[in-house]
Amino acid sequence: MKISLGEISDRFGLQLIGDASIQISGLADLTDAQPGHLTFLFNSSYKKHLAKSAASAVVLHEADSVDCPLPVLLSDQPRLAWANIASLFDTAPQPDRSIQKTAVIDGSARLGKHVSVGAHAVVSAGVVLADGVSIGPGCVIGNDVSIGENSRLHANVSIYHEVQIGERCIVHSGAVLGADGFGYEFDGKLKKIPQLYSVHIGNDVEIGAGTTIDRGALNHTCIADGVKLDNQVQVGHGTNIGAHTAISGCTAIAGSTRIGSYCLIGGAVGIIDNIEIVDQVEITAMSLVSQSILKKGRYSSGTGLMPGNRWKRSIVGFRKLDEMLKRIRLLEKRLDEG
Amino acid sequence: MKISLGEISDRFGLQLIGDASIQISGLADLTDAQPGHLTFLFNSSYKKHLAKSAASAVVLHEADSVDCPLPVLLSDQPRLAWANIASLFDTAPQPDRSIQKTAVIDGSARLGKHVSVGAHAVVSAGVVLADGVSIGPGCVIGNDVSIGENSRLHANVSIYHEVQIGERCIVHSGAVLGADGFGYEFDGKLKKIPQLYSVHIGNDVEIGAGTTIDRGALNHTCIADGVKLDNQVQVGHGTNIGAHTAISGCTAIAGSTRIGSYCLIGGAVGIIDNIEIVDQVEITAMSLVSQSILKKGRYSSGTGLMPGNRWKRSIVGFRKLDEMLKRIRLLEKRLDEG
Amino acid sequence: MKISLGEISDRFGLQLIGDASIQISGLADLTDAQPGHLTFLFNSSYKKHLAKSAASAVVLHEADSVDCPLPVLLSDQPRLAWANIASLFDTAPQPDRSIQKTAVIDGSARLGKHVSVGAHAVVSAGVVLADGVSIGPGCVIGNDVSIGENSRLHANVSIYHEVQIGERCIVHSGAVLGADGFGYEFDGKLKKIPQLYSVHIGNDVEIGAGTTIDRGALNHTCIADGVKLDNQVQVGHGTNIGAHTAISGCTAIAGSTRIGSYCLIGGAVGIIDNIEIVDQVEITAMSLVSQSILKKGRYSSGTGLMPGNRWKRSIVGFRKLDEMLKRIRLLEKRLDEG
Repeated sequence: MKISLGEISDRFGLQLIGDASIQISGLADLTDAQPGHLTFLFNSSYKKHLAKSAASAVVLHEADSVDCPLPVLLSDQPRLAWANIASLFDTAPQPDRSIQKTAVIDGSARLGKHVSVGAHAVVSAGVVLADGVSIGPGCVIGNDVSIGENSRLHANVSIYHEVQIGERCIVHSGAVLGADGFGYEFDGKLKKIPQLYSVHIGNDVEIGAGTTIDRGALNHTCIADGVKLDNQVQVGHGTNIGAHTAISGCTAIAGSTRIGSYCLIGGAVGIIDNIEIVDQVEITAMSLVSQSILKKGRYSSGTGLMPGNRWKRSIVGFRKLDEMLKRIRLLEKRLDEG
Repeated sequence: MKISLGEISDRFGLQLIGDASIQISGLADLTDAQPGHLTFLFNSSYKKHLAKSAASAVVLHEADSVDCPLPVLLSDQPRLAWANIASLFDTAPQPDRSIQKTAVIDGSARLGKHVSVGAHAVVSAGVVLADGVSIGPGCVIGNDVSIGENSRLHANVSIYHEVQIGERCIVHSGAVLGADGFGYEFDGKLKKIPQLYSVHIGNDVEIGAGTTIDRGALNHTCIADGVKLDNQVQVGHGTNIGAHTAISGCTAIAGSTRIGSYCLIGGAVGIIDNIEIVDQVEITAMSLVSQSILKKGRYSSGTGLMPGNRWKRSIVGFRKLDEMLKRIRLLEKRLDEG
Repeated sequence: MKISLGEISDRFGLQLIGDASIQISGLADLTDAQPGHLTFLFNSSYKKHLAKSAASAVVLHEADSVDCPLPVLLSDQPRLAWANIASLFDTAPQPDRSIQKTAVIDGSARLGKHVSVGAHAVVSAGVVLADGVSIGPGCVIGNDVSIGENSRLHANVSIYHEVQIGERCIVHSGAVLGADGFGYEFDGKLKKIPQLYSVHIGNDVEIGAGTTIDRGALNHTCIADGVKLDNQVQVGHGTNIGAHTAISGCTAIAGSTRIGSYCLIGGAVGIIDNIEIVDQVEITAMSLVSQSILKKGRYSSGTGLMPGNRWKRSIVGFRKLDEMLKRIRLLEKRLDEG
């Protein structure tokens, strides 16, 4: 795959400063780029790397274009330009629109046109796969699951009974959708509460490798349109995630929680059960959300990283914070009383 | 499935206030319930939702029954009533007690009566599956594994050699039992320490999707009867978890740690290696347990969630806690000395 | 398997104090050891357990050998002795060097000598498996993957296209290598950024159960020689992990971060994107690394564990840290001004 700078400029409406005939054969980051590569400047602070870059051209914002030593494509949104241009160079294997003969497909399953089912996949009774669905090798699709048009499951995904997946979704390997929610009631021992509902996933949802989304007990677990879940995210039973929210890797969300739309939830965040988070909330990495968030904005918890010996001294202070407050109050009182 | 309120009342010994002939076709939570649904009031603070609920009846505690606009089933333990009643409406597919022809079963494996082995499952040499065991599609069962009566493995579970699983256990998709513990000794590079022991799991244990339990190096990793592990829990080598302890999702437990019985360990907790936690300890979500807990009770760590700009100011203070303590002491001394 | 103390002494150059003819049939820890077991003393504080141990002999450091009631093998590095001796007793099943007939292997794949491919494994077009490679049952190996000599994948591993794995690597069940990195650009909705690069893994790398390593967008995600990743670790796209670094379970590493060599990263650590961590950095369990670490040493974050009621009082203080600092300053000023 080769394409000229001129063609990229035309196709994506990016102003070119430089030789339109230069051939681009791939993309690479600023420091690794070789001749033939198009690179990107996302942050002005990396501008110093431009001088040493072997890239054949760079996409950057006009504000960064002064004295640029490389041919330039100007973009108001270099990251968006990246997303668009990268699709030209995407060589990821596409589904082959065939049913592999080692797949086991129940006679009652209904398959649309151009469906792919990979080797050793299992499609159970009552499953409905719409046109263009791709089921990767080794996937197991439980009874009465439905999957919408052009959705793609990569290898070794497990889907329990009655889960519904929308259109154009991507589910990565090792993900598990619809396992029982974690519900017990103590009665001398922990008695299991049957999880009667399922998981409903909207359109254009991407679900990362090893991510788990549990089925609900008294209502469905719902993931709205356009949600993106990174790898190893855990979504508890009955939880609801609003449209276009992105959740980074290893975040754990307990049950019956309602998360709004357009939220950005950092990696390894913990969110407790039965709370509400409104739209457009940003939560920084590894925060614990232990109460509802009713106002949009950015939230954090935790302490900053410190060298171990200094940290230990701060921890001593943390344990005495209550006492410190009292001592300050007493000092103020003594001074006030003169 | 339909059942009258009268029958539910009789079967579970719950006093009925209302029309015994009302038909119940399912369960649902307070806000989503439709006509035909039985709902539950677990918390008095949600009582206000009763007026708007379309449910046909509600299970609640006598203390909440005054002026209830719906037919009522009284229970001293509404959550326990829920667990019992829900089993009536559980339509999850049950194992079909057959051996799928694409399963690969070693000739030396011994299978009891009414065993199910799903499509593309692999059962290795020396495996013993007791009566009523169900192995889901795509599971891989290593050499000499034994699984007790009526235990069920969902799809795509991986069990390494010599793991022992008790009776009536449930293992969800993507779980991995018996992989090598994380043990190395530094000798210029990291030299692997063979993990000679295995994983022993008691009766009535439930193991969540994507949960991993490592085999031991100098002793077995042991999970006692009635333990419930949620999704994506990690249990290190040689660790011991006592009976009827429940551990929520994404909790990471390092090796050679002993956790007592009847503990409740919140989601995304971290527990370091080689410590002891006694019985009946409760640990709140996302706490780090960095030393033994020798007294029962509730424990926490971390900081509360704050808006990002206020949090940053607290972090500045956290780094100065040691200095603040000293300054308070100095102030006290100056005042004392007059 | 039985071996005499004398033979162990000779084979590993450990001085024996006691009867060389004693037969050792296995290893066990200090408290569980039975007659026939060799045990180990790694920490002088456990010396008191020696008196009660039923072990037939113990490996310990000379400094701990005084008055030892058991036959002794002396070692300057008892843990290294352990790693060496344990390999004598390792009965884990080895790959059988055969291709199972239910494996699906594309005609264009190239397999070396003594390669094992387990039941129901899938080996796609263009894959290269070097001599002695073992692919476990249920693994799915994507297009154009290459795996070096004597590397072993346990059951149900998923490898996406073009991933490269070096020699003598071990990949545990449920691991997913090469899934798409988590990259989107907001354009009214979240637009996916194609992840054009792959994952490159060096030699002698071990990857734990359920661990996920994403493919890169503008450069390869690289794991250098000798790296050990525990279970359920997440490695983001384009991240680089230096040689002989060990990362404990459930650690989440975001994208485009560079981690040095010989680092020890504790369990459940979070590391944000686009930072640098130099060589020989140690990070304690559950810390959040939110900025680059440019000096070797030990780092921590978080707060110590506290009983819940005391913890709540410290949290109140944490929220007032900014105010407390101001009040201390004011007190100092008032006293200074006398």
